[in-house]
Amino acid sequence: MNSPCIILLAHGSSDKRWCETFEKLAEPTLKSIDDARIAYMELAEPSMDTVIGEAVSRGTRDVIIVPLFLAAGRHLRKDVPAMIADLEKTHGARIRLAPPIGENPLLGEAIRDVVMLQLEQAPA
Amino acid sequence: MNSPCIILLAHGSSDKRWCETFEKLAEPTLKSIDDARIAYMELAEPSMDTVIGEAVSRGTRDVIIVPLFLAAGRHLRKDVPAMIADLEKTHGARIRLAPPIGENPLLGEAIRDVVMLQLEQAPA
Repeated sequence: MNSPCIILLAHGSSDKRWCETFEKLAEPTLKSIDDARIAYMELAEPSMDTVIGEAVSRGTRDVIIVPLFLAAGRHLRKDVPAMIADLEKTHGARIRLAPPIGENPLLGEAIRDVVMLQLEQAPA
Repeated sequence: MNSPCIILLAHGSSDKRWCETFEKLAEPTLKSIDDARIAYMELAEPSMDTVIGEAVSRGTRDVIIVPLFLAAGRHLRKDVPAMIADLEKTHGARIRLAPPIGENPLLGEAIRDVVMLQLEQAPA
């Protein structure tokens, strides 16, 4: 059996710089996990549909979506579950939605480290 | 001279659960840094105006805003700088805008750790 395809889901933006920041953020994860990809909910490519279609064509029918969102708002509570229901039908895949990364306490600790580093570097 | 007031800036939402996630995310930072507060850009309280007004009334006129955003889009490139220009005039404070937390490589490493942990915990 194939291991699941992991999708790091970002919101997406028409601003290329926005997407580039997410691609950099995802890099350590993509390097550490086999068959992990980034996908955008809207306004940028690749979409979830594209990435899941490719996974299925490689023989993977198990997908886990990890939202690169700090918190769950309307998108994660309503829009993404509705998109997932459609994608499961379209691709015949089993798609699970993980909690947004911001709900994990590790992220709060990383934010503290980032803020402390930024304050050290800020000119007085 | 007083040390600067640090504002952890989140977008804000009318959904209380969204704000609660940010409050938890901010907790380690708020515990580690003196005079650090959370503030919301819109849709939730306290606003930047409220938090900066309180800082100024404590005798602090130096403010550093650290955006709890994963990437800079229109809000951080246009809306927040415009709000800062107004707030500087209103409060007679010096307000500096730090890069969003997501531009720091530490955050990409934390995301990798969170995703790996979530995959270990996900039922097969």
